[in-house]
Amino acid sequence: MTDTATANGAASLWATFELTLSGPSQGNPFRDVELGAVFRRGDRRVRVTGFYDGDGIYRIRFLPDAIGQWTYETRSNSPALDGATGTVDVAPARPGHHGPVRVSNRHHFRYADGTRYINIGTTAYVWNLQGDALEEETLATLAEAPFTKIRMCVFPKHYRYNENEPERYPFPLLKKGESKWVGGFSGSGWEFDFERFEPGYFRHLEKRIAQLAQIGVEADLIVLHPYDRWGFARMSADEDDRYLKYLVARLSAFPNVWWSMANEYDLMAAKSPADWDRLIHVVADNDPYGHLLGVHNCFAFYDHNHPKVTHASIQRPDPARSALWREQYGKPVSMDEVCYEGDIAEAWGNISGRELVHRFWEGTVNGGYVTHGETFRNPGDVIWWAKGGSLRGESIARIAFLKRLLEEGPDEGLDPMPHTGSYKVMMAGGLDKVLMNRLFTPVPGEEDWSRVPAHFATAGQPHRYYLTYFGQNQPGEVAAAVPPGERYAATLIDTWEMTQTPLADNVERGQLLHFAPKPYQALLLTRVDN
Amino acid sequence: MTDTATANGAASLWATFELTLSGPSQGNPFRDVELGAVFRRGDRRVRVTGFYDGDGIYRIRFLPDAIGQWTYETRSNSPALDGATGTVDVAPARPGHHGPVRVSNRHHFRYADGTRYINIGTTAYVWNLQGDALEEETLATLAEAPFTKIRMCVFPKHYRYNENEPERYPFPLLKKGESKWVGGFSGSGWEFDFERFEPGYFRHLEKRIAQLAQIGVEADLIVLHPYDRWGFARMSADEDDRYLKYLVARLSAFPNVWWSMANEYDLMAAKSPADWDRLIHVVADNDPYGHLLGVHNCFAFYDHNHPKVTHASIQRPDPARSALWREQYGKPVSMDEVCYEGDIAEAWGNISGRELVHRFWEGTVNGGYVTHGETFRNPGDVIWWAKGGSLRGESIARIAFLKRLLEEGPDEGLDPMPHTGSYKVMMAGGLDKVLMNRLFTPVPGEEDWSRVPAHFATAGQPHRYYLTYFGQNQPGEVAAAVPPGERYAATLIDTWEMTQTPLADNVERGQLLHFAPKPYQALLLTRVDN
Repeated sequence: MTDTATANGAASLWATFELTLSGPSQGNPFRDVELGAVFRRGDRRVRVTGFYDGDGIYRIRFLPDAIGQWTYETRSNSPALDGATGTVDVAPARPGHHGPVRVSNRHHFRYADGTRYINIGTTAYVWNLQGDALEEETLATLAEAPFTKIRMCVFPKHYRYNENEPERYPFPLLKKGESKWVGGFSGSGWEFDFERFEPGYFRHLEKRIAQLAQIGVEADLIVLHPYDRWGFARMSADEDDRYLKYLVARLSAFPNVWWSMANEYDLMAAKSPADWDRLIHVVADNDPYGHLLGVHNCFAFYDHNHPKVTHASIQRPDPARSALWREQYGKPVSMDEVCYEGDIAEAWGNISGRELVHRFWEGTVNGGYVTHGETFRNPGDVIWWAKGGSLRGESIARIAFLKRLLEEGPDEGLDPMPHTGSYKVMMAGGLDKVLMNRLFTPVPGEEDWSRVPAHFATAGQPHRYYLTYFGQNQPGEVAAAVPPGERYAATLIDTWEMTQTPLADNVERGQLLHFAPKPYQALLLTRVDN
Repeated sequence: MTDTATANGAASLWATFELTLSGPSQGNPFRDVELGAVFRRGDRRVRVTGFYDGDGIYRIRFLPDAIGQWTYETRSNSPALDGATGTVDVAPARPGHHGPVRVSNRHHFRYADGTRYINIGTTAYVWNLQGDALEEETLATLAEAPFTKIRMCVFPKHYRYNENEPERYPFPLLKKGESKWVGGFSGSGWEFDFERFEPGYFRHLEKRIAQLAQIGVEADLIVLHPYDRWGFARMSADEDDRYLKYLVARLSAFPNVWWSMANEYDLMAAKSPADWDRLIHVVADNDPYGHLLGVHNCFAFYDHNHPKVTHASIQRPDPARSALWREQYGKPVSMDEVCYEGDIAEAWGNISGRELVHRFWEGTVNGGYVTHGETFRNPGDVIWWAKGGSLRGESIARIAFLKRLLEEGPDEGLDPMPHTGSYKVMMAGGLDKVLMNRLFTPVPGEEDWSRVPAHFATAGQPHRYYLTYFGQNQPGEVAAAVPPGERYAATLIDTWEMTQTPLADNVERGQLLHFAPKPYQALLLTRVDN
């Protein structure tokens, strides 16, 4: 029994609080020593798991979700770590500390403190394994970019353009294997001690995650993936479970962590559906804070109805279907791969910036969220998608423009507005009132209409805000599709030129709006009479 | 009883044979006189319905499906028409006579004589109601165009840009009503005698349908539609049934007729689902030849699983989903509206020629068929979509190019090739063989993969022909995704420039192909070693 545990300074709401304890270093503490703690405040109890950080040092992390005095008591099978007690005075949140992102309003997100969170992600799978110079360049790029989330891996990734050996490994290296491209998902000859961890590897990861938090970026942490030459994708069930418990013990007290169980789970040939269910439970059941949890696919979607899956993380090139997937799963839809702006040979990595921006808009007006990625070849193959660095694509500025629009929009986020954007309603010239009313108010037995996206979609909040994206359609005349008796300001948006042009400041239902036709325009109608 | 019926010349296979009989003209023969005939050859019996053509003239039409001698005998509730008998010697088919188009190979079409039919339609809803000068211009345009089908209405159509009064009506006019645009689906004040027909109206329609047959164009005949100011969309059930029986009696012996029960059935507010089921049966049960029958939607699809519906006639802007709808309905998919190339204000009528061609390719490589339409404004609003005339769009030449490619391709048509076009297989650099084999041969429990279109799709016939369309993706390097041990010629296709560039004449699985990246390209792999 010990009575000394050292804290990492004063505690405050939504800041990672850490206790450090000294304990045994003999044998294999990673495997043999169990450590946990209970934090109490009034009736609240939060059970957290500690971890061995090497050199006889143990840590217990806690993310307080309420201010005031908490007490704690440790539990361990090692007498040196068992029964440590103490109090923690949690001060109000420091500026910029909002807590973990949660699902809000069924299809959207908020930070735990209620602040709005707009999910605009990017992807740089192993930016955190490129050495300090490049990693710092990536952080500087992100600080200037519009992104609020980054998809990134715990493990190194093996893929074309991305064959450099990492500086560190998550497990002790026993034997170095084949390090060049060997034409498949696994290399050969690598041996690691999967019963131990390399704390330095995880400390580096934590440092980068903390730096992301400082610039307002969530870490959508990919805990498993198939692009592997070291054998990390083919560990045994016991090894996987031990790894995940260790990872969750280390990271769950970081406010900006999301759990992405896999990148392309369906390409991990060694794992069965039962494995995935078990792995999800290992993470979710050991995470006291309920961080967001998703499973990203290559071909077949994971069953996002799984009760522990918080949002549908989807790879698909057609984000316009977000509206349907929202209904199918009743959760937020995050289009986490829609192809990359770039010029690499691989088919997923060579759409134009214009097409990527189009996909952002298609997802947005169908109530989803879209993730960016960039794959321009360059000397040394420092491609953003894998290694980070700097961005050169044409989409970034347009994504930032879209983000500003969303920030100015409804705090609840944008939900698909059935019918209002349908071409039948928008049709200039006039439909009779009976039909228009039917389109706004589905007739019993005809609700199916609302499930069918029309030629272009509208998202917003009823009676306040309607954002319609025309995409490939090039109307030059549109009838305001707003509820009867309400007045709206109409703004034409050029999603590529990033312009907002006022069309009228007081329009009502059916009133015609005229503008120059071209592709990739949008129409914003915002309520002015209330 | 009569023993005289006059035939319209020598009979031949798949040519409309017509008997003319004289009968009563007093009272209302349209309503009161029943007339039919049985044609017999060996064990075969074909029961056909005759019709009153005015002025005491009755006609019975028959489309022979076998050569040799047939006998016939009439039946009527009018003694003057009852019991006429005769023989018909059916000669072999004359050149260009192939019979009605049927479903073939589950998702494709052939003429009754086995000749391949490639469904590339266009739309000119009421080209047949524009007066001889414009109608003949339309026929001349069609004779030079790539289209094998035209979507056209029996009834006149009331819509913006299309407000001219037709020269004739299908029913006797009792009172002329409001003829200008009145802001809805129905006008006011019109009165017709729905218990009689105007034979001249139908004779004119028949003349145009026969002229279409001469230039190899099927008439996808829209028998009901909502865009109506005369009351034809709101007839009673009895009136609808009588009209459909009359129409089918007149037209079913025309080889090139398809029945489209409606344009946008779901906008016909006066009809219930039970009405549609009844109307389908009236047509199908009275048609002795089993012509193709479809129901076109605005928003909600008709249930194309209906046993009398032969193909899924779909309005949607996303023809890439044809592969899914093929599976859903087990029938051919005809994307009969995917937006129009043009510049009108309505959102469905202003996509670019490039986008329309893109949609043709998306539908094609997903195993569907796509229909063209054009909506450029011009003085007098002679817009192809409604009135016919001439074509000026940029898509026509590219559609003709695609048609030539299809004609040179497999006679069975193109079926989606699961996986082969998936980016994982096409991915340059290499996947291990285990995964590649999995992608070609779905593992039990993972067949769902095949249902998920990848970033681009491939259609073809296994072991012979693979056509991949890259669309917005711009790869410059692709690995040949063909089965092991086979050899193929590779051709790069620029769908817009209409070029075919040989890349290699003897490639095998996984071999890399290089070409200049740009959007809207396709890759054709055709077998050379067998």
